[in-house]
Amino acid sequence: DAPLTVIAGPCQLESDDHAQMIAGTMKEACEAVGAQFIFKGSFDKANRTSLSGKRGLGMDQGLSVLAGVKSALDVPVLTDIHEIAQCAPVAEVADVLQIPAFLCRQTDLLLAAGETGAAINIKKGQFLAPWDMANVADKVASTGNHRILLTERGVSFGYNTLVADMRSLPQMAQTGYPVVMDATHAVQQPGGLGGASGGKREFAPVMARAAVAVGVAAVFIETHQDPDNAPSDGPNMIRLQDMPALLSVLMDIDRIAKSNPIIL
Amino acid sequence: DAPLTVIAGPCQLESDDHAQMIAGTMKEACEAVGAQFIFKGSFDKANRTSLSGKRGLGMDQGLSVLAGVKSALDVPVLTDIHEIAQCAPVAEVADVLQIPAFLCRQTDLLLAAGETGAAINIKKGQFLAPWDMANVADKVASTGNHRILLTERGVSFGYNTLVADMRSLPQMAQTGYPVVMDATHAVQQPGGLGGASGGKREFAPVMARAAVAVGVAAVFIETHQDPDNAPSDGPNMIRLQDMPALLSVLMDIDRIAKSNPIIL
Amino acid sequence: DAPLTVIAGPCQLESDDHAQMIAGTMKEACEAVGAQFIFKGSFDKANRTSLSGKRGLGMDQGLSVLAGVKSALDVPVLTDIHEIAQCAPVAEVADVLQIPAFLCRQTDLLLAAGETGAAINIKKGQFLAPWDMANVADKVASTGNHRILLTERGVSFGYNTLVADMRSLPQMAQTGYPVVMDATHAVQQPGGLGGASGGKREFAPVMARAAVAVGVAAVFIETHQDPDNAPSDGPNMIRLQDMPALLSVLMDIDRIAKSNPIIL
Amino acid sequence: DAPLTVIAGPCQLESDDHAQMIAGTMKEACEAVGAQFIFKGSFDKANRTSLSGKRGLGMDQGLSVLAGVKSALDVPVLTDIHEIAQCAPVAEVADVLQIPAFLCRQTDLLLAAGETGAAINIKKGQFLAPWDMANVADKVASTGNHRILLTERGVSFGYNTLVADMRSLPQMAQTGYPVVMDATHAVQQPGGLGGASGGKREFAPVMARAAVAVGVAAVFIETHQDPDNAPSDGPNMIRLQDMPALLSVLMDIDRIAKSNPIIL
Repeated sequence: DAPLTVIAGPCQLESDDHAQMIAGTMKEACEAVGAQFIFKGSFDKANRTSLSGKRGLGMDQGLSVLAGVKSALDVPVLTDIHEIAQCAPVAEVADVLQIPAFLCRQTDLLLAAGETGAAINIKKGQFLAPWDMANVADKVASTGNHRILLTERGVSFGYNTLVADMRSLPQMAQTGYPVVMDATHAVQQPGGLGGASGGKREFAPVMARAAVAVGVAAVFIETHQDPDNAPSDGPNMIRLQDMPALLSVLMDIDRIAKSNPIIL
Repeated sequence: DAPLTVIAGPCQLESDDHAQMIAGTMKEACEAVGAQFIFKGSFDKANRTSLSGKRGLGMDQGLSVLAGVKSALDVPVLTDIHEIAQCAPVAEVADVLQIPAFLCRQTDLLLAAGETGAAINIKKGQFLAPWDMANVADKVASTGNHRILLTERGVSFGYNTLVADMRSLPQMAQTGYPVVMDATHAVQQPGGLGGASGGKREFAPVMARAAVAVGVAAVFIETHQDPDNAPSDGPNMIRLQDMPALLSVLMDIDRIAKSNPIIL
Repeated sequence: DAPLTVIAGPCQLESDDHAQMIAGTMKEACEAVGAQFIFKGSFDKANRTSLSGKRGLGMDQGLSVLAGVKSALDVPVLTDIHEIAQCAPVAEVADVLQIPAFLCRQTDLLLAAGETGAAINIKKGQFLAPWDMANVADKVASTGNHRILLTERGVSFGYNTLVADMRSLPQMAQTGYPVVMDATHAVQQPGGLGGASGGKREFAPVMARAAVAVGVAAVFIETHQDPDNAPSDGPNMIRLQDMPALLSVLMDIDRIAKSNPIIL
Repeated sequence: DAPLTVIAGPCQLESDDHAQMIAGTMKEACEAVGAQFIFKGSFDKANRTSLSGKRGLGMDQGLSVLAGVKSALDVPVLTDIHEIAQCAPVAEVADVLQIPAFLCRQTDLLLAAGETGAAINIKKGQFLAPWDMANVADKVASTGNHRILLTERGVSFGYNTLVADMRSLPQMAQTGYPVVMDATHAVQQPGGLGGASGGKREFAPVMARAAVAVGVAAVFIETHQDPDNAPSDGPNMIRLQDMPALLSVLMDIDRIAKSNPIIL
């Protein structure tokens, strides 16, 4: 099996310089440990907890930033889409379109995304069982596009809390599609700060290490040079400076896991 | 406080005749017990469990059916919308626009709905706490539209199961907006049939009676003359013939509850 | 069906005077509304959150207090037992032995309790499904003692939180045994205060009203004249002075529910 | 940090020969990979789902079997206790007394166990948060006995299901006591077979690998040469023949984890 892929970047795209700084740092860190790197950044946070949360750059400017990262650093890029009309223009720039967890059952969005031919990363809804994702993936696959990834990002567990069920990783892998562990959103506390989501970034390495030991195709990790001042998801993003050490451990575990696959 | 309102109808709109038959039967049953009636019917099931589930009549034909119900029976009608572009045309016919639970955090949809000036019924996401709905309602209210209803329809409880937390009713009422109990979706078993959601219709009266005893402005109940052959949500819809007896009990309980309000 | 029974009293027995004051007040309040009354009080809190929580009077003194309530007021009394050796002596005084929720799967305790011939009230464990209680009741019934009650007191829902699933009431009633709603423990927040359990007494009437509307044989409500200074469970006990008004509403709802039973 | 300890054995003790066969096989497998080994076996299953489940050998015969394992193989042994009176006699044979999860809040049992001076392994209740275990451990520590282990074995997640929250491992480690992952009970489906608990043994390696990657002092794994015919917990026990390969992977992951500890 291929070594671990790392999908990483800031929650929100902020500027060309910022995106390229993070992408450049991460590319170097990934190359140092032999991981494939995909840059992640959002152009619109369409479902903030409250209206006062910052939305982001918008699609046009966001795609321009993503295109800048691609041309400057020659790395694939991933971004999330929220409406059918966004799928085609975003797919002209992004290598991977991501379906947000809340929207993972919206049939028309899944079909429109699939029809672009881009790779589609579907986040598992916080309200779904791992086995429910087979039907979700089938919606995309019905377009003839089988370049699908399925991402675990935690499941509702009481109020304002998620739990990551490690069983979901091999269960979703039974679909035949690569499985991704979103280590930073799984430690979110949705709505936990009243007007915004809280989180506990110290648990993101817990999620990443556990998932890689079970065996995943990729980890998804949001990172920022100054999370506490980031426009969104600061409480759960990992500090950029902490990524190289984390990636080194993950790749060591990944080698063992890939040599000893768990297959259901 | 006003007597209980009953929001009822089939999960999917099927035809003019079918809608008017159900609306007529329900109107009569509601009048018999002194309940206000709002007819409910969906023109598109946009987030079916699997691609093979029936989607519905579509917006144009669905709105025509709803308009027919209004003119034939002189009752207000409610339907759910899934995309920004649907808000304005749907609001020309529907008295109440409903935001589906999965979409209750989509800021642009909430704003577009609010801007129509129609009443907006927001279903609480299966992944949200009751207190999270204050921020959700604020998004609609920011448009100047305060005709908002908040609906409990169950919260994720393990896999493929929901639980209805009766504490959420007075908690959501703290927003000042009327609270609705969705008695039939709260007994869904999401994805419980593999390719479709299951449910236990025998528990819908449990939910309705419990909620009315706590005190709610309205109950939301999907009903069908032949649920087992309905195109969607059959396992949890109540048989149309069973509605009059249920409504009679609910109104008796409602009188007691309204005379003895629980206010947090 | 018989009118609602009310099982009520302080969490901990404190003294003869205190027990008889509460029992007398409750007996009068129940007689005023036509409810049967059973006095409840614990002699030992054997599973406090932390070691610093007060344990109670102990078995000998506790039984003496319970005997005093019986002789002074002529009401049946209920108390909980924690060890096999307590069953026989406690059954000489108490009309109902109660199995605590954490202990509801301990086979030997259930058998010893059953063998006393007293009525046995089994609290459903916070870790059990309603249908699991059939096996639990069978353990007691195997002794030939079928005087069994099954009590809902909430189920684990994330960390430090319980939720009361109203479906459990008719589900447990399928065993044929009377079902009780424990309205005050269902609103506990286990461990929610760090060294003690928290709770939200304002939700206890929510639970009681909802359950009675669905249909139960009895409600279980802990009450105290000064809950905030009670030795245990203060945050969720109902003020004694608030009980008559609550009972009046419950009896009104009970009449409707008993005339319209929900039977699965 | 010390290399991983493996606590393993059958759910129930069956006979001298059986216990020594499993203990011998496991001792050899642990020595081969450099793990410390503790033999585990229960003499009484005191909380079977239903009365028809097999209880076990009983204390006297069980202790004799454990003593035989110790003398024949020179390995420490662990067994669980359910009543205060069992603590002292069991501690004469067993090196580790285990408090069952359902009983982890029973103050007197914790104190009696602590007073033996034996090491005490406390299973975290399915109804507790990780941070609740600090109060639990304090009860044992109040006896002056600080030889305490804390075990994660899954937390209630809806009905008949557990989920293992990997965050609990470093959270419980904040107490300063060694943390154990019970990989086989965490994949139980309590009551899932109606009259007995179900389970999914294929997920036990998922739990073990994930936990070891996060960092634990020990894993607890029930194993049997023929789980499908074992008297209890067959669905979740790992086949004895599969243990050496699993242990080899776990030790490889453990080396990485212990070199890169996660400390909150």
